[in-house]
Amino acid sequence: VIVYKMHNIVIIVATGVCHTDLYHLFEGMHKDGFPSVLGHEGAGIVESVGPGVTEFQPGDKVIPLFISQCRECRFCKNPKTNQCEKGWASGRHAMMASADSRFTCKGKKVLQFMGTSTFSQYTVMNQIAIAKIDPTAPLDKVCLLGCGICTGFGAAVNTAKVEPGSTCAVFGLGAVGLAAVMGCKSAGAKRIFAVDINPDKFEKAKVFGATDFVNPKDHDKPISQVLAEMTNGGVDYSLECVGNVTVMRSALESCVKGWGVSVLVGWTDLYDVATRPIQLIAGRTWKGSLFGGFKSKDGVPQMVKAYLDKKVKLDEFITHNMTLGQVNDAIELMKVSCICVLCVLFSLA
Amino acid sequence: VIVYKMHNIVIIVATGVCHTDLYHLFEGMHKDGFPSVLGHEGAGIVESVGPGVTEFQPGDKVIPLFISQCRECRFCKNPKTNQCEKGWASGRHAMMASADSRFTCKGKKVLQFMGTSTFSQYTVMNQIAIAKIDPTAPLDKVCLLGCGICTGFGAAVNTAKVEPGSTCAVFGLGAVGLAAVMGCKSAGAKRIFAVDINPDKFEKAKVFGATDFVNPKDHDKPISQVLAEMTNGGVDYSLECVGNVTVMRSALESCVKGWGVSVLVGWTDLYDVATRPIQLIAGRTWKGSLFGGFKSKDGVPQMVKAYLDKKVKLDEFITHNMTLGQVNDAIELMKVSCICVLCVLFSLA
Repeated sequence: VIVYKMHNIVIIVATGVCHTDLYHLFEGMHKDGFPSVLGHEGAGIVESVGPGVTEFQPGDKVIPLFISQCRECRFCKNPKTNQCEKGWASGRHAMMASADSRFTCKGKKVLQFMGTSTFSQYTVMNQIAIAKIDPTAPLDKVCLLGCGICTGFGAAVNTAKVEPGSTCAVFGLGAVGLAAVMGCKSAGAKRIFAVDINPDKFEKAKVFGATDFVNPKDHDKPISQVLAEMTNGGVDYSLECVGNVTVMRSALESCVKGWGVSVLVGWTDLYDVATRPIQLIAGRTWKGSLFGGFKSKDGVPQMVKAYLDKKVKLDEFITHNMTLGQVNDAIELMKVSCICVLCVLFSLA
Repeated sequence: VIVYKMHNIVIIVATGVCHTDLYHLFEGMHKDGFPSVLGHEGAGIVESVGPGVTEFQPGDKVIPLFISQCRECRFCKNPKTNQCEKGWASGRHAMMASADSRFTCKGKKVLQFMGTSTFSQYTVMNQIAIAKIDPTAPLDKVCLLGCGICTGFGAAVNTAKVEPGSTCAVFGLGAVGLAAVMGCKSAGAKRIFAVDINPDKFEKAKVFGATDFVNPKDHDKPISQVLAEMTNGGVDYSLECVGNVTVMRSALESCVKGWGVSVLVGWTDLYDVATRPIQLIAGRTWKGSLFGGFKSKDGVPQMVKAYLDKKVKLDEFITHNMTLGQVNDAIELMKVSCICVLCVLFSLA
């Protein structure tokens, strides 16, 4: 048996499929990023702990974190950011895989995706990248807090800092976008525009708090102009939850001049995002959000509690339940589908 | 005699030349933007007041404002912005000239540039776009507060909100950049990097508080990488004071991940500005500043007072004193020169 200093072995019980898995597989395709075990939105149970581990015991319910929180680096000590510099991600965003993977297959090294690799029955995690959660939490629900739901919700609440009475627009109504809608609603937004080219998603967006629904395909004009006309000049906050640089530009330009804030939430690193300088000089702010700005070890248990207290919805995101053996079907379902799909895979140990 | 409701006639006593005058003349060149009387950085005396004017009397010392402050619109009422919607600028940024000009030449209408036109002995201004200033203020100095100095100083203090002990970088050391350096210093920045391709400007930057000097031409690497290496990952705040989209990108990418804030201060509307989404997702914020974020009627008299109290420098910006008859020489001097030029023209009535 190999033991890893400061690391835990975690049994993954449930995991979601996120578009970022697809991004790595079909879009990013970094030449040094394979072979790897995908998956980064999981929940599980500590199976065993390595030397030096003080915070965990076998049997603890946990959520693996693709953003660590060491509590010691200058990023962890700064309240303005959640981007701990001790994690797998430091400088390796392009390839999205940790160098220090413990996975092998027939003697050959297999990379650990985003420091987690939850499409696996077991994974080895550094303790700075694991959140201990309430032992009563249902793992097949709270696994979603490992990525998408915290990402969207936090982007509205922590990064955009949506204010009560404000007007918001969320572009893209996948799980992250729906969570962003939920975040806007939770922050007290008065109007929440749900924007998607698939109108089938609007019904679900309503469940999370959207008040207005816009399909860009219904209009001849740019969507920024459509929203400006519906809101007396633009929205106070916009959140891009697609990962498309054209949509990112539209989201920024849909904000009102003077104080509009637009947040990039969707992930892409393939193209530049652009706008005219006047869009910013006119008073708009352009930001980005990673994991919703949550300091991960602090934020995830709080979000689990919020779910248990019925302040945050999770069940409503889930559309399919599948087994780990069906992981390729799940990927395919998400890839080809324009409907709102969130697959939960069970990998019962 | 024609009288204009709510308007004052102002005698311009002194005016600076700003790069924005050149931008309109040589770069922007909007087809509907000429003929016009340029100049927007002036100071003068109220000659006469029209019906409905309550705030001003003949003899008042004033600074014409290219950003109005009506105190009634939703922008004036919102503390987050200075972009009053009653001014000349609403929707006319591209052509930079007011439709309701009172200038004529041989019966033909001449446009009023940026609602001010200070390269003239007289101009007619709406009272919402005039700041009454301390009667002891020297007009041939405080005219600079009509644009460049407020723009740079305020971008650091109001828009970036530079914090004590922070590290800043100012790109471009014209009058606006030097004022931004002064703003960073005033806000308590510990290190202020002055960045320019002309090292002759560094001596002057030192006067305003710069502590480090970087000439991108001295390095083979991108300037963002040079600054990252000098600052353990990048600066806390960067200010682009050139008006060049390539420099704007460099300024953003010179900021530290997690909390870096970059502000566009230089004006250009000819090209898109671009970056990789990851630059924002990594925690950087991209903003813009117009007139340094100062609510104009409130801010300009305060800055005049700060100058009289010796808390803000103005005299040190002035390199040339010329007459209104030499205005074309002044434009030429600014156009061809890479040295720090700020011309003050006297148009004594």
